[in-house]
Amino acid sequence: MLFFTQCFGAVLDLIHLRFQHYKAKRVFSAAGQLVCVVNPTHSLKYAPTRCAAAQASTEQGILPACHHHEAVHDPQLVPCTCPLFSCPWEGHLEVVVSHLRQTHRINILQGAEIVFLATDMHLPAPTDWIIMHSCLGHQFLLVLRKQEKYEGHPQFFATMMLIGTPTQANNFTYRLELNRNQRRLKWEATPRSILECVDSVISDGDCLVLNTSLAQLFSDNGSLAIGIVITTSKVHSSEAEM
Amino acid sequence: MLFFTQCFGAVLDLIHLRFQHYKAKRVFSAAGQLVCVVNPTHSLKYAPTRCAAAQASTEQGILPACHHHEAVHDPQLVPCTCPLFSCPWEGHLEVVVSHLRQTHRINILQGAEIVFLATDMHLPAPTDWIIMHSCLGHQFLLVLRKQEKYEGHPQFFATMMLIGTPTQANNFTYRLELNRNQRRLKWEATPRSILECVDSVISDGDCLVLNTSLAQLFSDNGSLAIGIVITTSKVHSSEAEM
Repeated sequence: MLFFTQCFGAVLDLIHLRFQHYKAKRVFSAAGQLVCVVNPTHSLKYAPTRCAAAQASTEQGILPACHHHEAVHDPQLVPCTCPLFSCPWEGHLEVVVSHLRQTHRINILQGAEIVFLATDMHLPAPTDWIIMHSCLGHQFLLVLRKQEKYEGHPQFFATMMLIGTPTQANNFTYRLELNRNQRRLKWEATPRSILECVDSVISDGDCLVLNTSLAQLFSDNGSLAIGIVITTSKVHSSEAEM
Repeated sequence: MLFFTQCFGAVLDLIHLRFQHYKAKRVFSAAGQLVCVVNPTHSLKYAPTRCAAAQASTEQGILPACHHHEAVHDPQLVPCTCPLFSCPWEGHLEVVVSHLRQTHRINILQGAEIVFLATDMHLPAPTDWIIMHSCLGHQFLLVLRKQEKYEGHPQFFATMMLIGTPTQANNFTYRLELNRNQRRLKWEATPRSILECVDSVISDGDCLVLNTSLAQLFSDNGSLAIGIVITTSKVHSSEAEM
């Protein structure tokens, strides 16, 4: 009997997932856009103290004092950049992606334009929605975080990090777009390098920031669809063109 | 001597204003865009209590209980919609614009695309930057407000209101755009009618919201340039086009 109940639950889950996927496709119906349903993860690390000294990131692939365990002795090694866990892993920048996939089970998607569909936006802060995104020969980490900067007032922060150096990151532009209820919000910026640490980017507020009421306006049945486009950035003539 | 000092001060002010205007033109260099320097006004009214019952605005041009003085007896009359003052004036919707210009000295600008350059962003909250904008045969009120929703954490709220009924407002779309430091933020929405009261739009957070750090990233020497475009809205196919 228990077996049948579980089977029935699993089938219901699948139908729900399929329905969410269909809904996102309907909203973002441009041909060829991949919709990825991203489930939330309750952050297990103690965010505020992590990355306190991460601002001083360098071009050499070192992430100074950006994790809890002992200091990195080999300057070629970077610590685990997963924003969810205080993970003792360290390795070369080139193997960060496979570590994130294998150890932290973060999905990776292909394509320059994807739709990130974050489910269960109502869950209490701190909560993260994370995915890796492979395009233009590089891998990016998209982080959506629900966090209470001001107690009792959760906000949503979304940013894109390049799994690479800050110099490499300067070659790209990413755009996050919300579009619903006759409202549209677009954020466009140069991705940061994961060597700069996602926590400090979010605490600086240098990302897409949504208060709860705006997040609700853009959500559909508790899910928030974020359209993502990554392009190689030309010389920034964009400031003049408006 | 005092006279010469004052003259010198006035000349310096003029040079400063000219310089700000030039800077804004440089950033928003698209031909034909009008740059308007808007100085801040410290809000004199007691914002939180005003418009408590404004949600129930109707199509008939009545603004129910949206001001401090006695109730409006003639349903054709609307109270003063200036967000700055608790003004006892009331009149027909058609004469709101001339009241705002004459009594509250709010400037009016022509053109579908303008640049709103708000100066002195560092001033403490509550502060408003207000202008009227005439295009497509209608008048709009642009309000940028610095307000502390959470004590000690001022935020900036920008919205556009049509000086007309909600039905008329549904025919338009406005876009606010910030563009600086390789970052771009765009907010696009249907303007609200001034009958709905700007205070409630801002307290609902259904507008462009900027925290202090983002406002600083987009500011240039204490001034924030907001590009404004108003268009007539077609049937909202925009949700599908992304």
